Amino acid sequence: MALSVLRLSHRISRDKRITTHLALTARAFGASKFFYTGDSDSNLENSSEYVTKEWGGNFTISFVDNPTNFIKEWKRKEGIVVHLTMYGIELSEQLKLLRSRINDYILVVVGGSKVPGHIFQLADYNIAIGHQPHSEVAALAVFLDNLSDCEARKHKHSNAKTKIVPTEKGKKTKNVQESSD
Amino acid sequence: MALSVLRLSHRISRDKRITTHLALTARAFGASKFFYTGDSDSNLENSSEYVTKEWGGNFTISFVDNPTNFIKEWKRKEGIVVHLTMYGIELSEQLKLLRSRINDYILVVVGGSKVPGHIFQLADYNIAIGHQPHSEVAALAVFLDNLSDCEARKHKHSNAKTKIVPTEKGKKTKNVQESSD
Repeated sequence: MALSVLRLSHRISRDKRITTHLALTARAFGASKFFYTGDSDSNLENSSEYVTKEWGGNFTISFVDNPTNFIKEWKRKEGIVVHLTMYGIELSEQLKLLRSRINDYILVVVGGSKVPGHIFQLADYNIAIGHQPHSEVAALAVFLDNLSDCEARKHKHSNAKTKIVPTEKGKKTKNVQESSD
Repeated sequence: MALSVLRLSHRISRDKRITTHLALTARAFGASKFFYTGDSDSNLENSSEYVTKEWGGNFTISFVDNPTNFIKEWKRKEGIVVHLTMYGIELSEQLKLLRSRINDYILVVVGGSKVPGHIFQLADYNIAIGHQPHSEVAALAVFLDNLSDCEARKHKHSNAKTKIVPTEKGKKTKNVQESSD
């Protein structure tokens, strides 16, 4: 799986935590690259990079100036573009098709409430995670979980400094001394 | 399924949008009640109620003063309590067991980063959606999606004023004149 995520129209004042949650969700569910447009935000980038340093993996976060050109360029290089929107076709109807393209370069585009019409046109697939208003974080997580048949969230992150020791009651972590995955 | 969600430690200044996304996700994935503790927040309640009025269903949102007593009372009435935490046992290992209790009253507890230790003790199940840091919104969505075998997000909401007409490219809605589900 070679997945990347593009978050549209990040606004520092309003979206700080939502975009952070999107980046962490992308990483935790196996995406390797996170791009965002809107306001360039060093705090967002630093908090994402801090998590990657501590918990491992090769996840990167980058600001993109022009999302339209970025998406066009992605398609020009034969990657596919999946836009998550409650107006699209329900994931369950397209899952088989999307899974058949899982080895292509997939760019998952998530927006807020006001995604411009041309993004719907540019996307190869407009996919709904249910047809109710909820959350781009929820949509991204369920999409990546379903696409990978629940495997993405078990992705091993190389070079982690900290790992969790799963426990029935309580919090246990261990420090990892060396690269182990 | 009789599902409720309890969000711990809402802070108006910091969590406004995250808690709104949690409430909308709970509703969209079939929960019927959303409780929250921390700061009482009329804007949060109003925005959740507005969505329910427009998009249908019988979803309610309520402030809870004392989460510990609330959880104890839930258990006293023979409901079960599932706390979502990255420190718990991975969902895939407990899914069969949890599905066998799907007709019990399930309270799904979601917190932030600093959930007190006694919540882990009080919960019947501490369940991880992967063992990486990500988002309580992502965790809630994937939990409800998996528990329902991807059916929850297709839940029909009665008395909706607006519904989506799924479309390959673009945004289409229809106004619903009367109760139809």
